[in-house]
Amino acid sequence: VSTGALSGWTPHEFGRIDVNSLWSTAGIFPKDIALSTPKEASREIRQSFGTTYGGNYKLQWEDGPKTVLIIKKPHDEQTDKTLIEVASWIHEKYPYMNVIVEPDVAQEFAEKLPFVYVIPVGKRVEYTRVTDLVITLGGDGTILHTSSLFNSAVPPVISFSMGTLGFLLPYHINNYKTALEKLIEKKQASLLLRMRLKCTLHGADGRRLQAKDGSGRINDLTVMNEVNLHRGRYPHLTSIGCFVDGHLITEAVADGLIVASPTGSTAYSLSAGGSIVHPSIQSLLLTPICPRSLSFRPVLLPPNATIQLKIGEKSRGPAEVSMDGKETFFLDKNEFLQVCMSPFPMPCVNRVHAGEDWIKDINDLLKWNQGFHNKQTMTHYMSE
Amino acid sequence: VSTGALSGWTPHEFGRIDVNSLWSTAGIFPKDIALSTPKEASREIRQSFGTTYGGNYKLQWEDGPKTVLIIKKPHDEQTDKTLIEVASWIHEKYPYMNVIVEPDVAQEFAEKLPFVYVIPVGKRVEYTRVTDLVITLGGDGTILHTSSLFNSAVPPVISFSMGTLGFLLPYHINNYKTALEKLIEKKQASLLLRMRLKCTLHGADGRRLQAKDGSGRINDLTVMNEVNLHRGRYPHLTSIGCFVDGHLITEAVADGLIVASPTGSTAYSLSAGGSIVHPSIQSLLLTPICPRSLSFRPVLLPPNATIQLKIGEKSRGPAEVSMDGKETFFLDKNEFLQVCMSPFPMPCVNRVHAGEDWIKDINDLLKWNQGFHNKQTMTHYMSE
Amino acid sequence: VSTGALSGWTPHEFGRIDVNSLWSTAGIFPKDIALSTPKEASREIRQSFGTTYGGNYKLQWEDGPKTVLIIKKPHDEQTDKTLIEVASWIHEKYPYMNVIVEPDVAQEFAEKLPFVYVIPVGKRVEYTRVTDLVITLGGDGTILHTSSLFNSAVPPVISFSMGTLGFLLPYHINNYKTALEKLIEKKQASLLLRMRLKCTLHGADGRRLQAKDGSGRINDLTVMNEVNLHRGRYPHLTSIGCFVDGHLITEAVADGLIVASPTGSTAYSLSAGGSIVHPSIQSLLLTPICPRSLSFRPVLLPPNATIQLKIGEKSRGPAEVSMDGKETFFLDKNEFLQVCMSPFPMPCVNRVHAGEDWIKDINDLLKWNQGFHNKQTMTHYMSE
Amino acid sequence: VSTGALSGWTPHEFGRIDVNSLWSTAGIFPKDIALSTPKEASREIRQSFGTTYGGNYKLQWEDGPKTVLIIKKPHDEQTDKTLIEVASWIHEKYPYMNVIVEPDVAQEFAEKLPFVYVIPVGKRVEYTRVTDLVITLGGDGTILHTSSLFNSAVPPVISFSMGTLGFLLPYHINNYKTALEKLIEKKQASLLLRMRLKCTLHGADGRRLQAKDGSGRINDLTVMNEVNLHRGRYPHLTSIGCFVDGHLITEAVADGLIVASPTGSTAYSLSAGGSIVHPSIQSLLLTPICPRSLSFRPVLLPPNATIQLKIGEKSRGPAEVSMDGKETFFLDKNEFLQVCMSPFPMPCVNRVHAGEDWIKDINDLLKWNQGFHNKQTMTHYMSE
Repeated sequence: VSTGALSGWTPHEFGRIDVNSLWSTAGIFPKDIALSTPKEASREIRQSFGTTYGGNYKLQWEDGPKTVLIIKKPHDEQTDKTLIEVASWIHEKYPYMNVIVEPDVAQEFAEKLPFVYVIPVGKRVEYTRVTDLVITLGGDGTILHTSSLFNSAVPPVISFSMGTLGFLLPYHINNYKTALEKLIEKKQASLLLRMRLKCTLHGADGRRLQAKDGSGRINDLTVMNEVNLHRGRYPHLTSIGCFVDGHLITEAVADGLIVASPTGSTAYSLSAGGSIVHPSIQSLLLTPICPRSLSFRPVLLPPNATIQLKIGEKSRGPAEVSMDGKETFFLDKNEFLQVCMSPFPMPCVNRVHAGEDWIKDINDLLKWNQGFHNKQTMTHYMSE
Repeated sequence: VSTGALSGWTPHEFGRIDVNSLWSTAGIFPKDIALSTPKEASREIRQSFGTTYGGNYKLQWEDGPKTVLIIKKPHDEQTDKTLIEVASWIHEKYPYMNVIVEPDVAQEFAEKLPFVYVIPVGKRVEYTRVTDLVITLGGDGTILHTSSLFNSAVPPVISFSMGTLGFLLPYHINNYKTALEKLIEKKQASLLLRMRLKCTLHGADGRRLQAKDGSGRINDLTVMNEVNLHRGRYPHLTSIGCFVDGHLITEAVADGLIVASPTGSTAYSLSAGGSIVHPSIQSLLLTPICPRSLSFRPVLLPPNATIQLKIGEKSRGPAEVSMDGKETFFLDKNEFLQVCMSPFPMPCVNRVHAGEDWIKDINDLLKWNQGFHNKQTMTHYMSE
Repeated sequence: VSTGALSGWTPHEFGRIDVNSLWSTAGIFPKDIALSTPKEASREIRQSFGTTYGGNYKLQWEDGPKTVLIIKKPHDEQTDKTLIEVASWIHEKYPYMNVIVEPDVAQEFAEKLPFVYVIPVGKRVEYTRVTDLVITLGGDGTILHTSSLFNSAVPPVISFSMGTLGFLLPYHINNYKTALEKLIEKKQASLLLRMRLKCTLHGADGRRLQAKDGSGRINDLTVMNEVNLHRGRYPHLTSIGCFVDGHLITEAVADGLIVASPTGSTAYSLSAGGSIVHPSIQSLLLTPICPRSLSFRPVLLPPNATIQLKIGEKSRGPAEVSMDGKETFFLDKNEFLQVCMSPFPMPCVNRVHAGEDWIKDINDLLKWNQGFHNKQTMTHYMSE
Repeated sequence: VSTGALSGWTPHEFGRIDVNSLWSTAGIFPKDIALSTPKEASREIRQSFGTTYGGNYKLQWEDGPKTVLIIKKPHDEQTDKTLIEVASWIHEKYPYMNVIVEPDVAQEFAEKLPFVYVIPVGKRVEYTRVTDLVITLGGDGTILHTSSLFNSAVPPVISFSMGTLGFLLPYHINNYKTALEKLIEKKQASLLLRMRLKCTLHGADGRRLQAKDGSGRINDLTVMNEVNLHRGRYPHLTSIGCFVDGHLITEAVADGLIVASPTGSTAYSLSAGGSIVHPSIQSLLLTPICPRSLSFRPVLLPPNATIQLKIGEKSRGPAEVSMDGKETFFLDKNEFLQVCMSPFPMPCVNRVHAGEDWIKDINDLLKWNQGFHNKQTMTHYMSE
């Protein structure tokens, strides 16, 4: 095991960690998580526009990242090779840095990546404490998975696509050296703080639901794209009471309801008819899925709203709660899902600055310039 | 002027015409227009499915076409060249055939196409009487224009695309020789009878409106894609009473209303939210444009329905009637547009047979297989 | 047990049955099911318009109905009372008629309705053979349930609403005497033949799937509203190959796909964005549920099309097949659902004639005249 | 003419004006317009949440309003009576206050309202300088008209509905005394600052367009609901280049494009398929009208974005610019409309506080709880 990263380590320096401590006592070296919560970190991050934390920020590290977590798409040969290449390159070029991977990845690549560290499955909360930078190799799913590892503050995340770029994938893997050198050596990044949603599950009495395995209260869960309540396998429409700040706005009869972040506006919510929302517009998107009422259209609620979705008295079966595309829980009659803005956004490293990337990407990704018809339809024959 | 076409001409033979008569007495040699109205021509056209005239037919000419009308897209150099090539090729290879072009085209190409005939502008009704076959060179607009020349029965129409194929453009111009040889020599064609709409304009008392230039009653007009009633330049929503078979179905407040044929279902109606309708499903599509009522969704009415769209008493201004993308008339308060199925469909020559063409084309044309997102969104990361 | 129904029974008379035979040998007295298949019954049913069997028909019985099946909504006190009233009224007024109810209903009302007959659960196919007329008491669900009892030919169905009328509920229960007297004594009815869909399940090799309980091949299933393939509880979009007449039209990535009849166009398909289709327009509605491709819009296919929906190779989990709101089967990778028009429509008794009922109802039911805004929005202030 | 309002007048006191000056020199007594621009008025207005000026504010006047402008719906008898009642009540109860009406109203009610002041048509800019409070009597149109009178800062606006309440109409006219007493005597109001849009018209070279009547540069125009670019009476789709912050996002081929404020999200934009946006979420809604590209969905852009909509080179005719439902200008090829957030929102007085009003209203106004079907559809029959 490499110990290079530990030489010269000073506890109070920003971003340095005692990686050995991961295996022993957690919490000894409190890390300033303010990095990603601009309110307390106004010196490091300059807010460029408007809302509480939406929009673009300029990050300036004092010391640069010391511990990097690499998350990769599973079961993909190309990504496996890339992981080995990127991790080895970092380890060689920046020997003082610690490289962390997920436990199953460490095991699989034990021979080829002997120098990596892991955070045990039961200690997931450590990710927030020790990680200075996350690199994702894969697609949107890999980024959503990364989000799920950080229930509270998230360090800057730089995402590399193996193929086509995307809203969440500003960098192509071919350019990883340039992108990482800039980040690690210049200690600067242009960040887009992507709003996340905090979800909690409650019983009819309002109390937090307990896990069925007796492990205690179900944790707060933080999602990046969306949480949805769905009829699942029950063929009947679900009746869901929608409350905003305690006021009933509608008793929706539908296949389900989505609460999405602006980042999620181009995912499930868009398929269900929601608008595309620029990631710097902080808001909660409430998008019905196949509503029986034809006038129930997608609604954008303010970021300080608290949404409660309560399974109706007349519902035929439980509803299923999915978070970022993972099925997680069932809710019975009168139980409810509560969603509000998470105080912990996802700070994503941008190519230029988010606004421009986004505007450039949206046309490419949505193929807006493709009509559904021959060009000639547009200009109907006008002779005579 | 070429007279080759007249040699051996026998008045009662199907499809032969005395082209000179075009300039003299119209209507001497009544042509059996049954060709395109299968009810009276059951021997020649076998109906393959279902409805009154929708669907695919097999046409078998006894003598083959003698008079061909070529319609071309205006102001397009490539199409101009193609016209000269195609018309000359027909004239040389089938010297007994008459080639007709539109008057302005005949004038423009007087030197290069000295052998063509024309139908004077005021005698448009002759097109139906004398034409055995129409060739269109251009795009959808050219076909719509062709439709507008035939207010009653239409002969078979074969359409060549200058570029990409389309629902209405089954043949590429590169293959014109093969396609025309098969048609002219084998005297056979697979036809898709495309339903058209008959539109009339009426005053508050139900009587037909008179043209403003004093030229008498406004004619019946036949459209292929759609007719629409629109607020036009008036910024206020229009109030339109929608009657079906004399019953009010709704008082629509909207930018406008479209009545489309199945052929038009992939044009304006689709942009306004209508469904895509296979051309063999005879029906009238009533599609609202930006309706104020969120529950006013597109409706398909049966082909024997008569739709009346009446400008509401409270309307702020006149409404504009457009037909197949041409602006034509204004309607004032209490005046109405009446639409029903035309008894004269457009018989379009198909590559194989319409069903297959259509199904093959629809996926290509609508780019259904393009997601709006990276492929990876579909399969969210599922490890752990 | 009443035996009045048997007096004067003649086997070959249309519509008479030996009700005792229900308990013994099935199939002795073949009933002419042509009643509801107009092709073979052209003498009795005059087709009023167009398509193979869509649209309105005038039924003229020679002898009038002898055996009536009453289906009621379960667990509803008001409907229970109505059942007793209606069944008793028929039994008293028309003692020669046989009244059939479902087995569980017969058991529950054994004391109050001692004269009713039942068809044993295992002999469901008898319903088609013996029933001359069906009365439904309840709502749309009751009618869908009735449809599920008749996998092949269906006798005329008259449906009474307990409250508000609807597309499928033309009669209010308060008028049951008048409506039934007209039907039973005048032996006449105005019928709307509502198209149904025939669904079969197939393995990767195209063979019919076997039931998992070893009871043999899964039967053909006939639905009235729609069949859908859905991701169910799996949070991932399903990849479904859509084939029409053997041609792939698209590889849909979506929550699911609906194949609906025109009758089903105002149910689930409408919620998913489909158009409203008049019941006399025979067609198959293919409506995607939350498709990832924004250009995959609802499509209407001709009634002679065969649709196959095949679970994609890349699908993450099985898809669930629901029929008329009942969950029934799972399909694994490469297995497929096949849907085509059923030769057995549902002949529904209409108030006047279907067109008028439908047009009158649609505005009431969809509340088209309710804007989403104050009336004044429509007429923006125009002074100055 | 009443001069009561002038006694004790001190130039620098907030909200007092020399009404006589309206007729003489404009601009002598600059009024602190900071009232409605919270940035410079932080003492008076406390921002409750987030964005630059969106959301709810608590207004505390030092002296209370002195000059009130009453705007009424034209040509409506009930509103005429109400105007007389409200204006007379204010004049009697608060004789020190100045009441202003529009010139044509003053003329019409010269006898009944001899005490009112007017601002001459040519001096519209004075409205901003002298008005402390606006009362509107009518509907949404009346409020939009009010907005059009204030191209820069707007004083608080209290709106009374003559009938049903609405998003913009929180007060019923029956309660006008209570509502105005609270406002004028308690000198307090709960304000929702509704974002407006600033629109300018530019030539191909980027310079501001000149009015055709030679009166010089066309002014900035401020809209409250939306501005749209539309094909108007030209039946051809318009080709519009959409630029955001100078970057082309798409070349839209459509009937038109809407740029709406959140307030406008429930007006034209909703009819065209846009989402409903809470008024405190500052954003620019770009909603296409019948786009040819099926993937061009409504987009929300950040409030600091500058949108430019440029008529395409291939456009067949000029496009028409409508603002808040009034037709105003034509744009030719390469000319463009520029839209950005106005620094001058519309401060609307709320019943309670905007969030609650809005959430309570939205369900009432959109009739979300009305299904399009019988209730029973929801709970399909489940027996057996």
